[in-house]
Amino acid sequence: MIASEVRALFAVASRPEIVSLAGGMPAVDALPLETVAATVSELVLSRGAVALQYGSAQGDPGLRARICDVMAMEGITDAHPDNVVVTAGSQQALDLLTRVFVDPGDVVVTEGPTYVTAINTFAAYQARIVHVPMDGDGLSPSALAQTLERLAAEGARVKLLYTVPTFQNPGGITLTPPRRAEVLEICRRAGVLVVEDNPYGLLSFTGEPVRAMRADAPDDVVYLGSFSKTLAPGLRVGWALAPAPVTARLVLAAESAILSQSMFTQLVVERYLATQPWAEQVKVFREMYRERRDAMLDALAESMPAGATWTRPDGGFFVWVTLPGGVDTRAMLPRAIAARVAYVPGAGFYADGSGGSSMRLSFCYPPPERIRDGVGRLGRVVRDELDLRDTFAARP
Amino acid sequence: MIASEVRALFAVASRPEIVSLAGGMPAVDALPLETVAATVSELVLSRGAVALQYGSAQGDPGLRARICDVMAMEGITDAHPDNVVVTAGSQQALDLLTRVFVDPGDVVVTEGPTYVTAINTFAAYQARIVHVPMDGDGLSPSALAQTLERLAAEGARVKLLYTVPTFQNPGGITLTPPRRAEVLEICRRAGVLVVEDNPYGLLSFTGEPVRAMRADAPDDVVYLGSFSKTLAPGLRVGWALAPAPVTARLVLAAESAILSQSMFTQLVVERYLATQPWAEQVKVFREMYRERRDAMLDALAESMPAGATWTRPDGGFFVWVTLPGGVDTRAMLPRAIAARVAYVPGAGFYADGSGGSSMRLSFCYPPPERIRDGVGRLGRVVRDELDLRDTFAARP
Repeated sequence: MIASEVRALFAVASRPEIVSLAGGMPAVDALPLETVAATVSELVLSRGAVALQYGSAQGDPGLRARICDVMAMEGITDAHPDNVVVTAGSQQALDLLTRVFVDPGDVVVTEGPTYVTAINTFAAYQARIVHVPMDGDGLSPSALAQTLERLAAEGARVKLLYTVPTFQNPGGITLTPPRRAEVLEICRRAGVLVVEDNPYGLLSFTGEPVRAMRADAPDDVVYLGSFSKTLAPGLRVGWALAPAPVTARLVLAAESAILSQSMFTQLVVERYLATQPWAEQVKVFREMYRERRDAMLDALAESMPAGATWTRPDGGFFVWVTLPGGVDTRAMLPRAIAARVAYVPGAGFYADGSGGSSMRLSFCYPPPERIRDGVGRLGRVVRDELDLRDTFAARP
Repeated sequence: MIASEVRALFAVASRPEIVSLAGGMPAVDALPLETVAATVSELVLSRGAVALQYGSAQGDPGLRARICDVMAMEGITDAHPDNVVVTAGSQQALDLLTRVFVDPGDVVVTEGPTYVTAINTFAAYQARIVHVPMDGDGLSPSALAQTLERLAAEGARVKLLYTVPTFQNPGGITLTPPRRAEVLEICRRAGVLVVEDNPYGLLSFTGEPVRAMRADAPDDVVYLGSFSKTLAPGLRVGWALAPAPVTARLVLAAESAILSQSMFTQLVVERYLATQPWAEQVKVFREMYRERRDAMLDALAESMPAGATWTRPDGGFFVWVTLPGGVDTRAMLPRAIAARVAYVPGAGFYADGSGGSSMRLSFCYPPPERIRDGVGRLGRVVRDELDLRDTFAARP
């Protein structure tokens, strides 16, 4: 199992002597804990009997209204709270969507590489996952069109395009505005629902919020959002914004899956948004992650051997590195951990065995100095690996 | 949809002028809110960076250890934290179990009547639900054996027996100890896994904790527990205790469903159990619910017409009432609501259309005076209904 490999890796990488560039954990230590404690305490004292009680499967109406305000920052100005379903992180929204739409053997089209736990979810429902390649401008519309044509010719039932168009996990790439329009049009013609997973959208390093695909295609896109990266993942509060018929099916699926969302964590988020300068907090996160991104890109330029390539993200958490000479990043990982640095091998982000010479590096969690150290160590491991290969290749 | 009917009903029943005997909401207003607020505030200040971060799919090890202590109160003394999976309420444990074990067309055997949302969950995975009748001693072992024989002869794949053996929802009935042994033996011989759903087990009105089925059959039972009734449902913290191979599959399913449980709510529960007199709080709930049960049973004896029958629960939340003369409780419900009392019609608790003359009454939420008022109103509605039927029957 890919998931259990990642878990085992995280267990090792959590040792303090190892610089982990593997995990996607946000820097929650930047949150003002006194303020969080006061907000939660006030919530329990003033509305405890509501916060501790069962809620609805769709989620608290007050929180759903605030979620609409959050999405307006990304150009989604027509969202109605009735079409929002609060979920246990956006992961649950993806799980429920897959449950509602995907029958065994149905096709889900995704970027290659794509978010590893999305692959697990689609696989859990026995979907067939078909990747479409990206370049520096994101998903290739022409490759998408060709893939959908080929699948249609095969008689495959393509249900969803799953995309992380903004600061992608794991690629760090953002789909350009012209391509967004093309992708939407291609999917509309093919009758394929677009799932826009957007946990990083507000973490832009240019200061310019990226306009969500959903903003221009309310009937064709299910938008998944999350407070995991802009507030705290330990609360498990995410959401889906969907066309009305899809919303109704998601609510029924949520009810059967967990009866109701936690009112407690929902109201913590609602109160935090209502009473604290949350947008300022997001700016703090943005600055912090931008600095860490810079540290990582500088260190990569200094440490990586010729032939290695990497992406230059304008936001989010991740850089995608591809090594020269056919290096197998999965085989190299134990040597990297021995050198006290961890990453996630690229193959886990594909359902088809691609990505063997690539790796995902996260800059979200360690401070800049640790990032520089870790990337430096990684550079030495990679150069040793290439030297070793040259030595073997040079043998008579 | 049964689920949406119940939802619509709850919406109406939440109006203040209506005595709702419909919902299964625990009386969280009996919790000491100052203490909860202080516990949560202290948690954020001392361990905020952990509580607000991602956790593991299996759940916090410290909480899992405390869950083992809780289960020891019901005779489960051999549970190991490694075999506990924390879930978003026990509902999620049931959903994940069904996902792991049930393929479309597989059979799940349950009591008749049974928990309504369990029916929804099994239906969501396209299970065939087969009921086995209960009497005052719970599930009938001889009927269970006959049912399993009949299903085996049909070639049906029976995967699970789903049972709420203690203070059953909706029946209020408890399976007797000799029958527990018989049911376990019958299922063991038939190779059917027993799912013991036990949210009410600690809410015994006799002071004697009921020994869990799992205590005597560690390899044959998956036990589902919950803090929803003994602490607060708004936290959504439940669990499954399962044999090791099942645990491993549940963890993978949980990861694909929601990535990780809320560390925040898990640690709130863990800290509350560690620092507060939780067992004393459970006693407070027990006394409160016993007084409400007494109020309901007294009022039923005073108000119900001859021929009506009802159960006499020794714990939990529910009384199951069956009316004489073929009264249709679903058709009668709008008249009850007009008379300002609500209940849940019995048919929703069956997958096969039975239960039409029955209803579930909850005594958990309204105070005793309201219960007496509500049951009194209900008695008048029932007698009017029977009078009307007699009048029509007497017409020439």
